[in-house]
Amino acid sequence: MTTIPGRSATGSPHADTLPAEARRMFREGLVTQTSGWSRGWTQANLLALPRDLAFDFLLFAQRNPRPCPILDVLDAGATSGPLLDGDIRTDVPAYRVYVDGELVEETSDATPWWREDLVSFLIGCSFTFEAALQEAGVPVRHIESGVNVPMFRTERRCRPAGRISGPLVVTMRPVPAAQVADAVRVTARYPSVHGAPVHVGDPRALGIEDLSRPDYGDPVEVRPGEVPVFWACGVTPQAAVVESRPELAIAHAPGHMLVTDARDSDYLVP
Amino acid sequence: MTTIPGRSATGSPHADTLPAEARRMFREGLVTQTSGWSRGWTQANLLALPRDLAFDFLLFAQRNPRPCPILDVLDAGATSGPLLDGDIRTDVPAYRVYVDGELVEETSDATPWWREDLVSFLIGCSFTFEAALQEAGVPVRHIESGVNVPMFRTERRCRPAGRISGPLVVTMRPVPAAQVADAVRVTARYPSVHGAPVHVGDPRALGIEDLSRPDYGDPVEVRPGEVPVFWACGVTPQAAVVESRPELAIAHAPGHMLVTDARDSDYLVP
Repeated sequence: MTTIPGRSATGSPHADTLPAEARRMFREGLVTQTSGWSRGWTQANLLALPRDLAFDFLLFAQRNPRPCPILDVLDAGATSGPLLDGDIRTDVPAYRVYVDGELVEETSDATPWWREDLVSFLIGCSFTFEAALQEAGVPVRHIESGVNVPMFRTERRCRPAGRISGPLVVTMRPVPAAQVADAVRVTARYPSVHGAPVHVGDPRALGIEDLSRPDYGDPVEVRPGEVPVFWACGVTPQAAVVESRPELAIAHAPGHMLVTDARDSDYLVP
Repeated sequence: MTTIPGRSATGSPHADTLPAEARRMFREGLVTQTSGWSRGWTQANLLALPRDLAFDFLLFAQRNPRPCPILDVLDAGATSGPLLDGDIRTDVPAYRVYVDGELVEETSDATPWWREDLVSFLIGCSFTFEAALQEAGVPVRHIESGVNVPMFRTERRCRPAGRISGPLVVTMRPVPAAQVADAVRVTARYPSVHGAPVHVGDPRALGIEDLSRPDYGDPVEVRPGEVPVFWACGVTPQAAVVESRPELAIAHAPGHMLVTDARDSDYLVP
């Protein structure tokens, strides 16, 4: 496994940055992955699609709630909503723009690509439960290492809906064997942000050949005595975009999330 | 308060009827409300709408998950799906057909109204948690009395979506004051079938003038020492149909539910 030199062993220096301030920094051009940012505030994946495909995608999300938990949907053409007092076209640190399923640009400002028929889906992110994992004493390696979480496309298929289909994408966090049950228990309490792991151990059963070469994000070390634990990932919609080839899709760059005005505790099941 | 003479103090004689058998009986013409039927199996509200309105309605459901928890959505024109091995046009004991928001027919067979562009939404029903309430020792008056649950339109508005808007509809169950906490605790464990009550006590705060005159279903007695407890209700979509006036909508008759092949325990949060 690859070892990543840690930038900080104590977590992100932006753990206390408030969401509106984080969005302002990103709007003004800061490009960074957001793991560890604005602790306690909910981060979201973004996918904006033409209105014509909106039902198919919303149904895809409904049928695949583990990777695609919908937090909110902005009306066609709307650029702000209850979860963000701002502008969805500029307030994410980095965007990926897809045309006919091909990644054509990574940019910090999606405004030039905006259309009035775009419907923006805000999708839960596993960053939400990372603070809860840390509070339960479960180490979160990529935060400790100051890198992006590793993400992998799997061989597992999502349930399709209309013109939308694709594979399940997962995040991986190495967990000490004695703490796997804690990791399951803690994350199961957040069903609307991916919830419990979809898979524990054996990456090959998911079709993942090499944990040191993630499809998105950065590799992290899996130490002796640790088990790779996999959670459904909000990049799944982007894998569906690549496969389903909508004429236009605007998404966040993996790990570069929208920091919303919702609190993680809003999504905690008591 | 009105007293309803009880047909059975021990629950429905159809508590042990399996879903496929229940659907066969309804398909062959039996018309009955289904509270207490097929205990342990999930019952569902139905709303079928033209494809053109499907995104607006799915978003309405997404924005109002308490009254409109989506269990499954059949593709346009599809008449069966994972939750029912049968025919959605005939397997519900009674249907209501709406044209331009007007109730035009109540029928046991919706086949003459079927169109290939109809998308069927199956929506969670509070009958799911009634067995759990009874197991926790909380009396469920309308089952004891052998009648349909009382349902009320409230003055509370749902969050609209596109062309769909309407009021919140609730069910009411009288609960002994000492057991209200139990009723909350038990039903909160079923968030995907309406979950915890939306309101406890004081019907007037919801705009309900007279508990003995429900808008749908049958009245039940509220005895001294009991508190009226209100849960979000899957008839809410029908109130939205009346207000939003789609060209065609096919719904179940209130209380006359689809008995599905899913188990209530599938929707229990551990």
